[in-house]
Amino acid sequence: MDERSALGMLADELGPAGDDAAVIDGLVVTTDMLHERTDFPPGTTRYTAGWRTIGASLSDVAAMGGAATAAVAAYGAPTFDPDEIRAFVDGASDVCALTGAEYVGGDLDNHDEFTVAGTVVGKAEDPVYRSGASPGEAIYVTGTLGRTGAAVREFDRGNVGRGNELFQFEPRVAAGRQLASVATAMMDSSDGLARSLHQLAAASDCGFHVEWDRLPVDPSVDAVAANEAERRELSTYFGEDFELVFTASPAAVDGVRDAVGVSLTRLGTVTDSEVLADGEPLPDRGYTH
Amino acid sequence: MDERSALGMLADELGPAGDDAAVIDGLVVTTDMLHERTDFPPGTTRYTAGWRTIGASLSDVAAMGGAATAAVAAYGAPTFDPDEIRAFVDGASDVCALTGAEYVGGDLDNHDEFTVAGTVVGKAEDPVYRSGASPGEAIYVTGTLGRTGAAVREFDRGNVGRGNELFQFEPRVAAGRQLASVATAMMDSSDGLARSLHQLAAASDCGFHVEWDRLPVDPSVDAVAANEAERRELSTYFGEDFELVFTASPAAVDGVRDAVGVSLTRLGTVTDSEVLADGEPLPDRGYTH
Repeated sequence: MDERSALGMLADELGPAGDDAAVIDGLVVTTDMLHERTDFPPGTTRYTAGWRTIGASLSDVAAMGGAATAAVAAYGAPTFDPDEIRAFVDGASDVCALTGAEYVGGDLDNHDEFTVAGTVVGKAEDPVYRSGASPGEAIYVTGTLGRTGAAVREFDRGNVGRGNELFQFEPRVAAGRQLASVATAMMDSSDGLARSLHQLAAASDCGFHVEWDRLPVDPSVDAVAANEAERRELSTYFGEDFELVFTASPAAVDGVRDAVGVSLTRLGTVTDSEVLADGEPLPDRGYTH
Repeated sequence: MDERSALGMLADELGPAGDDAAVIDGLVVTTDMLHERTDFPPGTTRYTAGWRTIGASLSDVAAMGGAATAAVAAYGAPTFDPDEIRAFVDGASDVCALTGAEYVGGDLDNHDEFTVAGTVVGKAEDPVYRSGASPGEAIYVTGTLGRTGAAVREFDRGNVGRGNELFQFEPRVAAGRQLASVATAMMDSSDGLARSLHQLAAASDCGFHVEWDRLPVDPSVDAVAANEAERRELSTYFGEDFELVFTASPAAVDGVRDAVGVSLTRLGTVTDSEVLADGEPLPDRGYTH
């Protein structure tokens, strides 16, 4: 059983776990485990690791339209180097500061492989789930796509400075708060745009028709992609970009556009069924953590 | 740098992280990472692992005198066996149910070694820290000591049923809530009684004088300990028992004793300095996770 099937099974049993974060009594809680082999290419600094670990959970809170309050992390490593721990805490604290959350500490664990688990707690009085999209609405994404894929390519080429820079994404908490009043369904793009669309379609029992030309591909992708196929791969399937993918009526989106603070791109339309790009089925594949 | 020194460094930098849990705006958040090699002897079921992972964090909330609201876990394993995941979730849910918390889901991560991180969120309007003990008060512990040490011995002997049973401790959340009104300093005994006393003494700038005869040693210890030295080792230094160690005036404790719902044993007296047992220095050693 792969992670996706297992998560599906748990979602069926636990309900809220199937969304980006669980909401109970207006409290949002979400946790993410990351580790060296699959999440941190050689050259990733501990600062960047702290940033991404907590950033991933902040993004889950953003996807619920919630406000982020506090973050903790469990830090597992073979040795406890003070500079490395301090760098991790600095990265975690700095990404929190962008969103109004406070990094309040955590746990250390002696572990063969560098492994971290971040948790963010927040508040969502009126959470946005994945299940509210209706045909006739439009489908949007915040910011740009493909930064993480481009970052991994930069790491592969030894450009670790650039890789670390691209890896430090801004969680869309403030945008999510603004979008909460207009979005009918929302999630983050951590599994890649393609898979996010399929997950929203499944949860909302609808379809999507998007146009390739509309995709807001990050400029960093053009710096590393050899051709259009690779450009599409990095922006659509690679995932871990932590942008918000949401549905809403275009008029409602226009009403909050100025307040959101990040670009909002309309990718296409909510339909009755099927996920299509330029009229062709969009494969349901993406990042499996 | 070992875990203890590293935690000390982080505590200095982050303040609340030096206590059992962080408290921010009345919200308590705490996280714990556990993994197969050091925390789950061969024979530990996934049900028990779920129980202990979340139980450890529930105990941290109890140690702050808080109420537990919600729990999440990140589950890292080489394969995602549906029965194992379900058992883990069942164990996590059952220990939550004992304390009024709700297990609301989590994250799955593909990981070579079975590794889990639990997080519990709760509320503490009037948290109890480690730093409020004063000379003349008394020092107490809830329940009994040594169950986890005895459990590990049972696992070593192949008595996995008994080991799992002893491993499923009851987090003292309800007791902690009652004690919050009388305890001047409190923490849990996860690092062992001896180390807990030294940590409380350091945080409160005081000492303790305890009497060996008063120690509430769990009956399970007598079933495995070959002699008095081993009995003391398992009950005093082994740790991971998750009882509450706290200071208070005896009169105040008598006032809540009936409401606490678990036995409260007076171990000795708060003094000006030094941690002594029967007049001899008590070594500052215990479980290092």
